[in-house]
Amino acid sequence: MAGCSHKELEEGRELHLDWGKLRKAVQCEELVIPVAVQHADTLEVLIVAFANEKALVEAFRQKVCVLWSTSRNELWIKGATSGDVLDLVEVRVNCEQNSLLYLVRPRRTGACHTKGPDGITRPSCYYRRLRYIGGDGADASADQFVVLEHLGDESASGGTGETPDDS
Amino acid sequence: MAGCSHKELEEGRELHLDWGKLRKAVQCEELVIPVAVQHADTLEVLIVAFANEKALVEAFRQKVCVLWSTSRNELWIKGATSGDVLDLVEVRVNCEQNSLLYLVRPRRTGACHTKGPDGITRPSCYYRRLRYIGGDGADASADQFVVLEHLGDESASGGTGETPDDS
Repeated sequence: MAGCSHKELEEGRELHLDWGKLRKAVQCEELVIPVAVQHADTLEVLIVAFANEKALVEAFRQKVCVLWSTSRNELWIKGATSGDVLDLVEVRVNCEQNSLLYLVRPRRTGACHTKGPDGITRPSCYYRRLRYIGGDGADASADQFVVLEHLGDESASGGTGETPDDS
Repeated sequence: MAGCSHKELEEGRELHLDWGKLRKAVQCEELVIPVAVQHADTLEVLIVAFANEKALVEAFRQKVCVLWSTSRNELWIKGATSGDVLDLVEVRVNCEQNSLLYLVRPRRTGACHTKGPDGITRPSCYYRRLRYIGGDGADASADQFVVLEHLGDESASGGTGETPDDS
């Protein structure tokens, strides 16, 4: 995060990957594993978050997307305050049983806590694509050779949607 | 994982979620963040793994899915030994810049290291769905009220694909 503002982090065109977040996340009171949350119909990946056993149980019981907030150390019923509830359709587990996939159906349009230029809550947290510019191959930090492009905003960025082939 | 075998973990019908894996993963030498890897065409979620800055740089440079193996503490070029290389199409970042989404195109059919009953490498690690049976609501462990169903094996399990509505 490197001291940049929330606005820069969430809306900016510079990459400030929060590499330390995961180490902080596992220091929460509960044992958690990653959960990829995917729209059951469009298959868009909406968020990647964490769940503990309590969250998984509540997800099944309440039939909505329930996660564990590693920053607040509490059960996180997605949309409980925003209204952007994600109905739970299916839960899958990976081969090694160390992550989960929630297939969900958003009750409204949004899943992210941010809003697009139109003022509407974004459907997915992955609204920016990394565009590789290139580097000198020596000791380059990711910040120096990657810029972010907002999806659906091609004219402003000149992006093609095929980032690796652009380099 | 609770002492169960690899075969039980990867092919079994019992849930043995490895809740401790993430804490082990962050103890590797590098700072890593979660990466959801998604098929660029079918949009199937293939794997969820981890990347550090080196892995992200190499992913862009080599234009394939490169991750960081937190167990082996080394760069993990997906498919380098198995041949199941995933060509990199696009990289996205989430709002808070603490996870990545790789959109990839498998060069062959597989992405998981396991094989299905047909002997063919499975396309996705998420080949099992959790089926909620219910519990007594008090101190139940997830193992006690969830069984796993192999996708595409409906006749054996009676699953409907709408787990939460079955309970």
